[in-house]
Amino acid sequence: MKYNKILLDHGSGGKASHQLISEILLPLFDNAILAGLDDGAIFDIGGKRLAFSTDSFVVDPIFFPGGCIGDLAINGTVNDIAMCGATPIYLSVGLIIEEGFPVEDLNRILYEMKRAAQKADIQIVTGDTKVVSKGAVDKIFINTSGIGIVDDGIHISGQNARPGDKVLISGAIAEHGMTIISHREGLTFESSLASDSAPLNHMVKKMLSVSKKIHVLRDPTRGGVGTTLNEIALQSKVGIQIYEHLVPIKPDVAAICELLGFDPLYVANEGKLIAVVPFDDAEKVLSTVRENEFGKDACFIGEVVDENPEQVFMITRIGGHRIVDMLAGEQLPRIC
Amino acid sequence: MKYNKILLDHGSGGKASHQLISEILLPLFDNAILAGLDDGAIFDIGGKRLAFSTDSFVVDPIFFPGGCIGDLAINGTVNDIAMCGATPIYLSVGLIIEEGFPVEDLNRILYEMKRAAQKADIQIVTGDTKVVSKGAVDKIFINTSGIGIVDDGIHISGQNARPGDKVLISGAIAEHGMTIISHREGLTFESSLASDSAPLNHMVKKMLSVSKKIHVLRDPTRGGVGTTLNEIALQSKVGIQIYEHLVPIKPDVAAICELLGFDPLYVANEGKLIAVVPFDDAEKVLSTVRENEFGKDACFIGEVVDENPEQVFMITRIGGHRIVDMLAGEQLPRIC
Repeated sequence: MKYNKILLDHGSGGKASHQLISEILLPLFDNAILAGLDDGAIFDIGGKRLAFSTDSFVVDPIFFPGGCIGDLAINGTVNDIAMCGATPIYLSVGLIIEEGFPVEDLNRILYEMKRAAQKADIQIVTGDTKVVSKGAVDKIFINTSGIGIVDDGIHISGQNARPGDKVLISGAIAEHGMTIISHREGLTFESSLASDSAPLNHMVKKMLSVSKKIHVLRDPTRGGVGTTLNEIALQSKVGIQIYEHLVPIKPDVAAICELLGFDPLYVANEGKLIAVVPFDDAEKVLSTVRENEFGKDACFIGEVVDENPEQVFMITRIGGHRIVDMLAGEQLPRIC
Repeated sequence: MKYNKILLDHGSGGKASHQLISEILLPLFDNAILAGLDDGAIFDIGGKRLAFSTDSFVVDPIFFPGGCIGDLAINGTVNDIAMCGATPIYLSVGLIIEEGFPVEDLNRILYEMKRAAQKADIQIVTGDTKVVSKGAVDKIFINTSGIGIVDDGIHISGQNARPGDKVLISGAIAEHGMTIISHREGLTFESSLASDSAPLNHMVKKMLSVSKKIHVLRDPTRGGVGTTLNEIALQSKVGIQIYEHLVPIKPDVAAICELLGFDPLYVANEGKLIAVVPFDDAEKVLSTVRENEFGKDACFIGEVVDENPEQVFMITRIGGHRIVDMLAGEQLPRIC
């Protein structure tokens, strides 16, 4: 790496994160499962395919409209496992708490974790709690790791996108990120803004029940839709073309993005998924997503193409072509 | 809980930790697997029994004689899975890094993780990296979670100790904790002090190959041997009697404990295990442990008894009886 110190950018989920992973982590821990670079690892145990995923949550503020660090930590790992095409069943929870943290806040976070686990229908089966002295951690960080089962005949991977596939998004973008940043900046006028934090595993199960041919599932969290599409284009060595006017965004989210100077394509979501689906199955997958409580506004935003492999292009509202690159730099630290 | 703020004690592994777990966490996340309260969860998937465990590492300093936060994070979870009687196979790694952390130090930590993973013969298959702004975390914290397979016929649990069982320890105690505290206090005269951080999974595999009847396996980390024995006595509702003169401790470790006022029974170990073994199999298990590179100084330190259920007693060198309670308070924050 060209840096001698770790920068916030290295945790952005964008270009610098990819550099850290590809230049330091992958060469060191070289193995076929890790090299898959999907949201979780998939491997075989006793004839069953399992998905295994981990995520640490460091969001600031810990309470925000639409959720808190607790349900975010459950939903985040539930979704990462679901994006492997797996049914999440068991979770671990690792708490790192700052000395002096209010027990009342801890109880509130744990209660939200319990509710989220119930909603996602998973069990928290093991855990660990560390307390560190004041100043050694900012309030509370939570790691969740999880295990899921991949049914036979399902093969989801960022490497599987093929020209002709349709690109589906399950709803409006940029809600989580803009909620966090507004709350952090003390912008109270957006009273309708709330995080979209939600478990997507039930939606994924239904989607896979109508089509086992879905190629890619990914939740566009850190780095947003733009970075996630770039990851898929890179992993699958294909081009992806999206249409600006098809990308769903709520007017108030669009307004606050414009006000604060954020491109919504790079803003984190915590309750949305991107699916890359073969043309023939695309319509029935879309109707299935729309039946789910978290997928009412689902739509197609583009397609996988032969041209411009490893790149994402957007046809703008006025008909221009714009390259959608990976997020460069870190626009929103501690978003999740 | 009688406190309204989280104290360092709540992360000690001792009494306050148990209170936090039993009064807040267990009632909320009530399920049979979690209620087992062992080092990891054990459950059935596709006819195979799997062990699943998680641990966050916040040790300060991050580099110390005998190891660093990296190998500690690998060995810690490898050992937690091994203490379920399982063969650890896959690990996840979650890094939380402070902005500005030297890339050179990160490389050194990751390299030690790689070496430790190779030594333990496990694969790191999935991971996550977060970077937080300066001051939001002290240098680097690491979570590892892991999955192992429990062979048929093996039933290890803290609930299984029975009167008549022998209590075995795999080597001298208090080395990790006293190394950390000495290093932290800048005490350089103990040049021979080093952490005992080591993977114990190969030792456990050999132990189980000579006796499938081993009742309990536990690594006495936070809270030390004293707290671990209390956990076993509580879970199994038995008494445990140990003999002070049998508890192995190196002279320099004993000396620094005395100098700094620590009771070695409550000081953390990171490469030792306690095994509770039926009398008939005890000798052959002991010889097997002694053949392992990390078990040369293994010995029996006591036995499980009918009397004084849920309590641990020590016969002192001069023949007195002393109750060995759980660790109260936090003597060494950020030991692992």
